[in-house]
Amino acid sequence: MTDEEFDSDAVVTLEQGAGGKAMRDLVSEVLTAGLPDDSLDIGREAMDDGAVVPIGDRNVVFTTDSHVVHPPFFPGGDIGRLAVSGTVNDLAVMGATDVRALSSAVVVEAGYAESDLERIADSMARTCREADAAIVTGDTKVMGHGDLDGIVVNTTGVGVADHVVGDDGLSPDDVLVSTGEVGRHGVALLAEREGIDFGTTVESDVRPINGVVDRALSVAGADITAMKDPTRMGLAGAASEMATKGGVGIELRQDRIPVPSDVKGASEMLGLNPLQIANEGIALLGVRPTAAADVLAALRSHPDGQDAAAIGKAIDDEHGRVLLDTGLGTRYLREPATEPAPRIC
Amino acid sequence: MTDEEFDSDAVVTLEQGAGGKAMRDLVSEVLTAGLPDDSLDIGREAMDDGAVVPIGDRNVVFTTDSHVVHPPFFPGGDIGRLAVSGTVNDLAVMGATDVRALSSAVVVEAGYAESDLERIADSMARTCREADAAIVTGDTKVMGHGDLDGIVVNTTGVGVADHVVGDDGLSPDDVLVSTGEVGRHGVALLAEREGIDFGTTVESDVRPINGVVDRALSVAGADITAMKDPTRMGLAGAASEMATKGGVGIELRQDRIPVPSDVKGASEMLGLNPLQIANEGIALLGVRPTAAADVLAALRSHPDGQDAAAIGKAIDDEHGRVLLDTGLGTRYLREPATEPAPRIC
Ligand SMILES: Nc1ncnc2c1ncn2[C@@H]1O[C@H](COP(=O)(O)OP(=O)(O)OP(=O)(O)O)[C@@H](O)[C@H]1O
Ligand SMILES: Nc1ncnc2c1ncn2[C@@H]1O[C@H](COP(=O)(O)OP(=O)(O)OP(=O)(O)O)[C@@H](O)[C@H]1O
Ligand SMILES: [Mg+2]
Ligand SMILES: [Mg+2]
Ligand SMILES: [Mg+2]
Ligand SMILES: [Mg+2]
Ligand SMILES: [Mg+2]
Ligand SMILES: [Mg+2]
Repeated sequence: MTDEEFDSDAVVTLEQGAGGKAMRDLVSEVLTAGLPDDSLDIGREAMDDGAVVPIGDRNVVFTTDSHVVHPPFFPGGDIGRLAVSGTVNDLAVMGATDVRALSSAVVVEAGYAESDLERIADSMARTCREADAAIVTGDTKVMGHGDLDGIVVNTTGVGVADHVVGDDGLSPDDVLVSTGEVGRHGVALLAEREGIDFGTTVESDVRPINGVVDRALSVAGADITAMKDPTRMGLAGAASEMATKGGVGIELRQDRIPVPSDVKGASEMLGLNPLQIANEGIALLGVRPTAAADVLAALRSHPDGQDAAAIGKAIDDEHGRVLLDTGLGTRYLREPATEPAPRIC
Repeated sequence: MTDEEFDSDAVVTLEQGAGGKAMRDLVSEVLTAGLPDDSLDIGREAMDDGAVVPIGDRNVVFTTDSHVVHPPFFPGGDIGRLAVSGTVNDLAVMGATDVRALSSAVVVEAGYAESDLERIADSMARTCREADAAIVTGDTKVMGHGDLDGIVVNTTGVGVADHVVGDDGLSPDDVLVSTGEVGRHGVALLAEREGIDFGTTVESDVRPINGVVDRALSVAGADITAMKDPTRMGLAGAASEMATKGGVGIELRQDRIPVPSDVKGASEMLGLNPLQIANEGIALLGVRPTAAADVLAALRSHPDGQDAAAIGKAIDDEHGRVLLDTGLGTRYLREPATEPAPRIC
């Protein structure tokens, strides 16, 4: 029994909503502790990007996210684009690039500007078109003025995977591929929120990536051994989880990681590590070495995969850990203990 | 173009989250106006309890609800029980009594008592067991203290229907059946919230009803022509919608509607019509007259269907309207213009 279980005055903290260890503990020790077993191969226990529910002869992937981003409008996107992309991307990184249905559940504060709601709805519509996805059902609740700071959008998705890809499938020597540039979303949001001027406007990478992920799956199928979208806890968080679940270590080469220069500059000013902040438009892929070249070519053939890069590989050492080769030496790259840029999910 | 579209200062109102006409207008004119078509037979346009997504050779039903109930704990239930039941019941009234997967997305305020979160999680677990349903995926976000009044729980569900039942299938002479007593949830919540003492404690009816609904489907199949759960807008709201969508009138017999005496007493004191307040543990069924006796017997064979009653019928007159035969005369029973007990969803 942990100390926490004796602490009857314990309250929820921001950290517990940040996507890292504190959140996973809250989920497993409090939120899901007494739930009946789901008896799925990739279900709740797997803590993957979504669950795989066999229905008839199909692998139905099911995933949910609530979005509470501040500010709701930011360079490169808004909460509506984020809500659709986030759920489409969790489906995609499970192998379900074929999105069959999305739900949209909006909770909004009384007094919220209808014009803002319209902007968000329009953005959701546009993003759905990009992802070739449709919202088929929804819910709308209004809370009293002052009872909610703005708006919360939950999107839940159902997709079909020909080939299911978990986040636990890495084997030693698998190549780690990023489908695109790292660090944009976190920096864009922080800059907007704090009103910081870096001379240039960093735009969020938020976008649906089922199209580009599908290119990779089409050429490599089962040679793609693991996938994850490096959201709240950044590249470092996603890679750590893939390493832990795969029972491997991961070695990253800093010079191979595509961090755009504006993100580099801004993160330095903010004192952040771009590998530890949120992304909303890329995926990390584990790929068998023999298929790596084909996967990179396939990704780069798609507009959203222009910056795809092999950034490292899995190793049969340092299990559960991520090593960063900086060129000057090698150090551990840890999942951030707490979200460096809280409430930007 | 409506006036509203010219009003750039328009803001969201509580009424627009209440489940009635104002909400449906917000959904169709703002929230979903620009969305791509989902090309489903029962999809977003149908505005039914959920959507039906064909996957392989199965009819997958998909539905979502966010729950923002005040108070979160009330006689007979709590927000956790409500969240699981609400989604299970929307699946069930589409014919998907076979719940394949639920998601749970929790948004909670920093500073929320972990003990309350545990109570809610335990209640969700218990309710899942009752419904023979499992939560297979989820999401957890924490908002800053003061940015959310407590907790919002979204549950989204996936079920499979052998026989899909819409809310638009009523034909003249179909018998309208309630699976149980009317008015409990709304009264229980209002009494708790306002601290009103009626001498007795009215308990909410909140519970999963896929079991009892399944009994009816098993004996009557396609002779069940329409179903709906009379939630936020009460029996009056659900019946009105079934009448409108079915292109029929509905005649209800007041003396047949099972309103428990404590609900009657309390509603009188509160100045409410029990037919216009929320229920969370019953369904309205349209049944071909030849199957009505079998359906009633089947429902009553289940613990949650003891109070099942034939409360009226569809007529080929007064299309879209609900008539209430009070014994002294007949009057229109309208969908409440605004939720009589706001924020109790
Ligand atoms: N309230 C909850 N109930 C059940 N499972 C949960 C809950 N919250 C999170 N989980 C599970 O924990 C795991 C991690 O969730 P998390 O939200 O971090 O993943 P993600 O959606 O891929 O990331 P992000 O939310 O940053 O996009 C997932 O498997 C998710 O299903
Ligand atoms: N934000 C939204 N986007 C798309 N569709 C929506 C949205 N809000 C509501 N809807 C649709 O409007 C219809 C009515 O929604 P409503 O929430 O009243 O139904 P319900 O879930 O059966 O009732 P309750 O929420 O009281 O349990 C449903 O078909 C629902 O899918
Ligand atoms: Mg993810
Ligand atoms: Mg996600
Ligand atoms: Mg609803
Ligand atoms: Mg319903
Ligand atoms: Mg509902
Ligand atoms: Mg999530």
